[in-house]
Amino acid sequence: MPPQIEFDNLRVVLVAARNPLNIGAAARAMSNFGFAHLRVVNPYEAGFREARSAVGASHLLASAEEYKTVAEAVADCTLVVGTTAVRHRDLQHPLRRLEYGARLIRKEARSGRVAVLFGSEKFGLSNAALSHCHWLMRIPTCEENISMNLGQAVAVCLYELIRNGKTARQTEKVNRATAAELERITATLLEAMRSSGYLDRRPIADVEERMRRLVHRLNLPARDGVAWLGILRQIVWKLRKGKPPAI
Amino acid sequence: MPPQIEFDNLRVVLVAARNPLNIGAAARAMSNFGFAHLRVVNPYEAGFREARSAVGASHLLASAEEYKTVAEAVADCTLVVGTTAVRHRDLQHPLRRLEYGARLIRKEARSGRVAVLFGSEKFGLSNAALSHCHWLMRIPTCEENISMNLGQAVAVCLYELIRNGKTARQTEKVNRATAAELERITATLLEAMRSSGYLDRRPIADVEERMRRLVHRLNLPARDGVAWLGILRQIVWKLRKGKPPAI
Repeated sequence: MPPQIEFDNLRVVLVAARNPLNIGAAARAMSNFGFAHLRVVNPYEAGFREARSAVGASHLLASAEEYKTVAEAVADCTLVVGTTAVRHRDLQHPLRRLEYGARLIRKEARSGRVAVLFGSEKFGLSNAALSHCHWLMRIPTCEENISMNLGQAVAVCLYELIRNGKTARQTEKVNRATAAELERITATLLEAMRSSGYLDRRPIADVEERMRRLVHRLNLPARDGVAWLGILRQIVWKLRKGKPPAI
Repeated sequence: MPPQIEFDNLRVVLVAARNPLNIGAAARAMSNFGFAHLRVVNPYEAGFREARSAVGASHLLASAEEYKTVAEAVADCTLVVGTTAVRHRDLQHPLRRLEYGARLIRKEARSGRVAVLFGSEKFGLSNAALSHCHWLMRIPTCEENISMNLGQAVAVCLYELIRNGKTARQTEKVNRATAAELERITATLLEAMRSSGYLDRRPIADVEERMRRLVHRLNLPARDGVAWLGILRQIVWKLRKGKPPAI
């Protein structure tokens, strides 16, 4: 199978992976299914680039991009999808089954860059990492043993992406706002909430993560993102007028 | 997902696997996808029953059946399927793509016992082992790197077996905000735009309709609608403070 053009737009992002062998195994699966771009956020050990488990995929480990934060790792992506084994995590996000999620990813990847996030072997994705996601995707594992090995989870997800890529139908393309744009909107919204006194009246725990998720759920087209940011900036400007930033 | 009755008829058979960790990983994937019966033929090391990679699947390793020959391991099966990465091995067998093969296996497993064979990490299935197979199945890997890790190959094959043929749109149901709620959000947003001076600086034709469409495109869950309305109301209250409504 020739690598399909839309998959050049896909980034596999491993967040806080602990075991270099798992990072290597993920790279091997990527290479098996024709995906070239690996990103790692805070790998626990630096030695991952030499992982022997990356059979036939050492070039992929060598060119992997390293990031300090999830925000930086997904900044240029228009769709950020988290993977999870959990079914009913006090869900702040739409949760999609792998098959349906993969279909949406294929569609988006035709025009924009897509990040698929995998969490650490032990804890999966943290709530902070999840707050960067537009939605979540789960592999339909059994209730009795929902937690998959990292390399196997990556293999299954990528297989579902390449499986019968033909089924994708031609649909209208919408350019989505990038994660960096959503981050600017989130920051400005938070500022508006602070300046308006909202947070004094109703303090919110983890307000930054909550607002980031709220903004991600909007699933904004790029053009609408620009509009919202303009409105919020004007509001903040007016609220602050003559006052120092209400940080 | 409840384990499906027909999969009680499936036997995963690992032939001459060299690495106990891979046997454990295969067991883990089996347990993830609801398969209970593992058979091993001539494992190179005896220690596989304690493999730590079988997270959540140690019972499966404990009950694995050991055989000296492939013939014995598949004796009670009515269909024997070999897996291979190779496309054009001097083919004595029909070669089926995973998706189609899995369909045939599901069908047969409703009435008879089915063995799916996986070969050693290094050499795959020997010609002798292949000779016990009715047909072969391959995972659609890329020409550049066709050879998969054993545990990952097992995971992908079993996933394809349990995968729901229908790509039903399975999403958690979300209650969307009503049109009346969206109308209140739109009205409050317009008020915030007026009070902040946005519309003085950048007058917009048909602003009310445009903002209504902008808000509708957010496709808000009911709960998020409440959150946004609360934030906007506080902003408007603060912007207006001590001033008459800026209509």
